Amino acid sequence: MENRIKRMKNDVYLTSFAAVGGKKEGEGPIGNKFDYIDTSDQFGKDKWEQSEAESQALALNFALNKRKMDPKELGVMLAGDLINQCASSGYGLLNFDAPFLGIFGACSTSAEGLLLAALLLDSGHFQKAAVVSSSHFCSAERQFRSPVEYGGQRPPTAQWTVTGAGAFILERETSAPVTVSEVVVGKTTDCGIDDPNNMGAAMAPAALDTLQTYFTESHTAPTDFDMILTGDLGYEGSSILLELGKSTGLDLSQNHFDCGLKIFDRKKQDVHAGGSGCGCAASVLSCEILPKMVSGELHDVLFLATGALMSADAVKQGLCIPSIAHLVHLKRV
Amino acid sequence: MENRIKRMKNDVYLTSFAAVGGKKEGEGPIGNKFDYIDTSDQFGKDKWEQSEAESQALALNFALNKRKMDPKELGVMLAGDLINQCASSGYGLLNFDAPFLGIFGACSTSAEGLLLAALLLDSGHFQKAAVVSSSHFCSAERQFRSPVEYGGQRPPTAQWTVTGAGAFILERETSAPVTVSEVVVGKTTDCGIDDPNNMGAAMAPAALDTLQTYFTESHTAPTDFDMILTGDLGYEGSSILLELGKSTGLDLSQNHFDCGLKIFDRKKQDVHAGGSGCGCAASVLSCEILPKMVSGELHDVLFLATGALMSADAVKQGLCIPSIAHLVHLKRV
Repeated sequence: MENRIKRMKNDVYLTSFAAVGGKKEGEGPIGNKFDYIDTSDQFGKDKWEQSEAESQALALNFALNKRKMDPKELGVMLAGDLINQCASSGYGLLNFDAPFLGIFGACSTSAEGLLLAALLLDSGHFQKAAVVSSSHFCSAERQFRSPVEYGGQRPPTAQWTVTGAGAFILERETSAPVTVSEVVVGKTTDCGIDDPNNMGAAMAPAALDTLQTYFTESHTAPTDFDMILTGDLGYEGSSILLELGKSTGLDLSQNHFDCGLKIFDRKKQDVHAGGSGCGCAASVLSCEILPKMVSGELHDVLFLATGALMSADAVKQGLCIPSIAHLVHLKRV
Repeated sequence: MENRIKRMKNDVYLTSFAAVGGKKEGEGPIGNKFDYIDTSDQFGKDKWEQSEAESQALALNFALNKRKMDPKELGVMLAGDLINQCASSGYGLLNFDAPFLGIFGACSTSAEGLLLAALLLDSGHFQKAAVVSSSHFCSAERQFRSPVEYGGQRPPTAQWTVTGAGAFILERETSAPVTVSEVVVGKTTDCGIDDPNNMGAAMAPAALDTLQTYFTESHTAPTDFDMILTGDLGYEGSSILLELGKSTGLDLSQNHFDCGLKIFDRKKQDVHAGGSGCGCAASVLSCEILPKMVSGELHDVLFLATGALMSADAVKQGLCIPSIAHLVHLKRV
């Protein structure tokens, strides 16, 4: 059987990154770190789906501009989102003149994009790649639950879909402080959770599966890293991950953090179990974690975004929620 | 700027492939070439979405069995479909114990999967990969148009979504008659078509864009190949592609074929402009084209699957249909 950990043979650099967010994200604990906050949540558009698409374009433009890069220089753009047929990505990146690959990993999309981009660059076939992913509270609510105006009540395990997008530029043949050093493609797990208001519980076992694979194969332990960063397990899912880890001899309590708990203040902001959505991990990684790696505050981060590979219809038809977690090992050089 | 054509540095072999289809596909001109036809279209399930998911599992099982391969040997599975949140892939491949990457390219998904798998194998990080994609007439109709029972009339430019799935196994370090020799990642184009009943017209310009890129960069001409095979342009889209080609000096009339015109007999089967869907290109390539390459009847095929990156909501909101075409150059060795 193949090794699950794929270690880059060449240096693959994360040379630029950016995040945009909405009002609630701006009011959160890392709100002032976003490249741009739109307090209207609309991003200049009058349909929520198009607002989300525009947030992808904005995030990618910020990332490109920081690097003074023209979209035409990109060998490939990888993007995905939660909207039906990944429309936020298809429409959002339409005006960027670069090859495009649509990906779908639900909330694991940012990690899927980063790992694919790193592997494609490492192959030598591509020199510069972009990864973008997004979510929007209002487009997600009306697609997966009810329109926001309906005012449906949410149970405490429910998470709050982040309005925001993150974009990353990856390159070879250059130099920058942060590299993608290893990646692990996740396996889909189904642990029998069928409650779409408890995604954290559905996704935690997938996170554990990928982490166990990584630690076993690399002969490392959680404390060998500055941070084990999950994408959007939220409060419920993070607690389950720590407990499941403990029961299998994996102590994650020292340095596990979750983007869904970093982006909002659960005590002050009415977000129940925390943030979620493709834009959650992407934006927190962009505006909170990567700058700390650049500054040298963090050196070694296991970034692990989880995704629930269900649809609203599948759950209504009585199916459980399959989940997946892809891992990206980020290293300061 | 980077070369658009990515030429494999190592031999990447297509070692196994399979196709399953429904009743109408079984009655078509290549119906007897499918590995399995389910005349009930249900594939043992009582929900259309789950039938489609099951067709993916079946197709992959056929491909694995032909190669006597255990799913655990796969380094990665790449899969996608048209159903919201790519649920046919997420649920369809859930029981295969192998790393999973969801992709979304609408009807270009089979080509996107093949090109990504080839690049990942060529990178040396993976040894064996599977690519699967599917569509189902009934799940697509009720998601994108109306439930089949409604009996809505279709204009002559509309296409008939194929019920079927195709699966491919790609490997390195072995030997087989067919290789992936080159790939081109497509760019998204938007030519102002907003009629979801005329996908062929929306997708033809994307096909031309990728073909022009390929022929210009490779200094080749259409007649240098045994076949230029598009995925599902259908009658309308194929006519437009040939006309657009002619107007720009590219004569595709000698050897252009379209999977959407191969799978059904437009004169005898009521399919309007021909077949479409992620399962169209995947199944026709699997059961009609690749066997002819193995037997030596075909040596050099440019396979080009096109996709319309829209959602039903986006079109209702007045947006046009962006399209993309990914190219895979298949070569007999």
